Amino acid sequence: MRALDWEGGSDGAVAMVDQTALPGTLRVLSINAVDDMVAAIQRLSVRGAPAVGVAGAFGVVLATRAFGPSGPRLDDAIARLRRARPTAVNLARMVDRAAARIPEGFDAVLAEALAIRDEELAASVAMGVLGADLVLELVGPGPVRAMTICNTGGLASVERGTALAVIQTVHERGRLAEVLALETRPLLQGSRLTAWELARMGAPHRLLVDSAGPFMLARGQADVVLTGADRVAANGDTANKVGTFSLALGARHAGVPFIVVAPESTVDMTTPSGDSIEIEDRGAGEVVSVVGVATAPKGTNAVNPAFDITPAGLITALVTDQRVVRPDRHESLLPLPGAARDQPPAGRFTTNDIPAPTRRS
Amino acid sequence: MRALDWEGGSDGAVAMVDQTALPGTLRVLSINAVDDMVAAIQRLSVRGAPAVGVAGAFGVVLATRAFGPSGPRLDDAIARLRRARPTAVNLARMVDRAAARIPEGFDAVLAEALAIRDEELAASVAMGVLGADLVLELVGPGPVRAMTICNTGGLASVERGTALAVIQTVHERGRLAEVLALETRPLLQGSRLTAWELARMGAPHRLLVDSAGPFMLARGQADVVLTGADRVAANGDTANKVGTFSLALGARHAGVPFIVVAPESTVDMTTPSGDSIEIEDRGAGEVVSVVGVATAPKGTNAVNPAFDITPAGLITALVTDQRVVRPDRHESLLPLPGAARDQPPAGRFTTNDIPAPTRRS
Repeated sequence: MRALDWEGGSDGAVAMVDQTALPGTLRVLSINAVDDMVAAIQRLSVRGAPAVGVAGAFGVVLATRAFGPSGPRLDDAIARLRRARPTAVNLARMVDRAAARIPEGFDAVLAEALAIRDEELAASVAMGVLGADLVLELVGPGPVRAMTICNTGGLASVERGTALAVIQTVHERGRLAEVLALETRPLLQGSRLTAWELARMGAPHRLLVDSAGPFMLARGQADVVLTGADRVAANGDTANKVGTFSLALGARHAGVPFIVVAPESTVDMTTPSGDSIEIEDRGAGEVVSVVGVATAPKGTNAVNPAFDITPAGLITALVTDQRVVRPDRHESLLPLPGAARDQPPAGRFTTNDIPAPTRRS
Repeated sequence: MRALDWEGGSDGAVAMVDQTALPGTLRVLSINAVDDMVAAIQRLSVRGAPAVGVAGAFGVVLATRAFGPSGPRLDDAIARLRRARPTAVNLARMVDRAAARIPEGFDAVLAEALAIRDEELAASVAMGVLGADLVLELVGPGPVRAMTICNTGGLASVERGTALAVIQTVHERGRLAEVLALETRPLLQGSRLTAWELARMGAPHRLLVDSAGPFMLARGQADVVLTGADRVAANGDTANKVGTFSLALGARHAGVPFIVVAPESTVDMTTPSGDSIEIEDRGAGEVVSVVGVATAPKGTNAVNPAFDITPAGLITALVTDQRVVRPDRHESLLPLPGAARDQPPAGRFTTNDIPAPTRRS
């Protein structure tokens, strides 16, 4: 099954697995309007950089159908889709790609959105193959014990995913011993989604709290760490789910390969480094309560960075759908031939919520 | 108020704040029997190495009153108290100290337990002063932004605590800007207990998920990290709440001082290094559900190390009630003059649940 897809023809709708209801309930939403799509993205019914990009493109389809080929309501709808979440580069980029076809009419916009969906599918398969080849090369003979964070599977993409596509491919090759899946506070995507996907694919796995990840690496309990990415800067610095940086520190300390798996669409050559990536602060609510139950005294304040930045120097390899780049061998992320160089920067590039590194004088 | 205390004379009982009910309810248990004390320790109604040590000593008082000065029932009760939790050295040590007075009669056992309580109180005050002096020396002029994990306050001790006693002393000196308190999964002692204690002492604070700690350090959001310890090995390796190691890696990466605060009773010269400290695995239940709500698919397995080991090389300073040892200046933990050298090793020294570091060949 797919995390989201277009169902029907020009009068169709987006069918979307509501990830906020998993693992308890498998509920499929039918989304017909831009407002509903923006809300679905913001409440994380759809999440994961590739899936959010596809959702944004489908949102442009809905906007074009509702508001016609131009005008302030269309412009406003596209602007709201673009900024529904700030950190992932895919969302703004895919919204822009679909919106560029608006002058050609609705059918062209729908065709572009479906092409984006198909490219994400093909990218997942390609990342799985490139990543599994690399993992088996780095780990050597014998079964592979992989650690991962957040959800990077089919639910984060359209099918198969990014880091979890690599794990699935290793499993399909009969080489997977175990996955150690971090629960991924605050929203527990690891517990709710990754454990659910791993069970569906019959992959042995155990959950652990996020802060146990680096220690389990120090105790030799995993052979490789695989994570996704929300945005990869030109210098290889990677924004991903909060906790990724800490896992990268643990992998470096333990001498375990740390591999980032993300489609080329996540690489943003217009962002020079991690310092210029905005970190979304999702507010205190997700921290002071868990699954709707208050856990801290009433009125407690919190800081809640949704993402963190892993410096390129802590990354062994970046696996995309088209290449493997090895920062550990001082390889850099040159733009691919034919890659768009005229993309406008996606999202806001300020760091309002979490200041960039500074030292007190 | 005290986390636990003896109330009444020789027919008295232990009054204990039930920390499992905080922050919602301030419930005080009255514990009259050894079985109830063992259960209270195991379900974490009392927790924190110093407090658990005092609880163990009071448990010996209850055992002596119930079972007399010798016999298999007394021996069994003392053995169960000693092993109620495996990682903290204080529990077995304080049980042994109180039990050594049994031949002198019940009053001597009670006097010893009360002396242990008073020593813990005095130790908290002393750690606060030594630690605050060190923090202000390391951070320099200006307000202090401190990061901490778990609960190391009065609730973890008898009053004031260890790392939180240092924070309280800095606050009383008018130098505290903010505390960043890690929520501390799986049992959320940071959210439930530390936020509660910080609010009671009027200290500005914000909560954060554990995995955000290292990233907040990288972004320059704290000047010092202060943690407690469950056991300090002879080489300075420190067992503490899971997540401490990851925070130490983050502090090292950010160049922020990492200070361990623990009474001398936590230092265990019979444990050569962290590799020989048993790590308690508390089972999957705490990971696959949060505050009683299932968060992972039914049947999901988990690994749940309650503690981790921070190597001495990542520790800037160890502050006890009697001294400051600076591993960063290659100072080592020589036994103090008069320190007992004939203490038997406390707890089991195997690593059944979480194997020690190994590499696959």
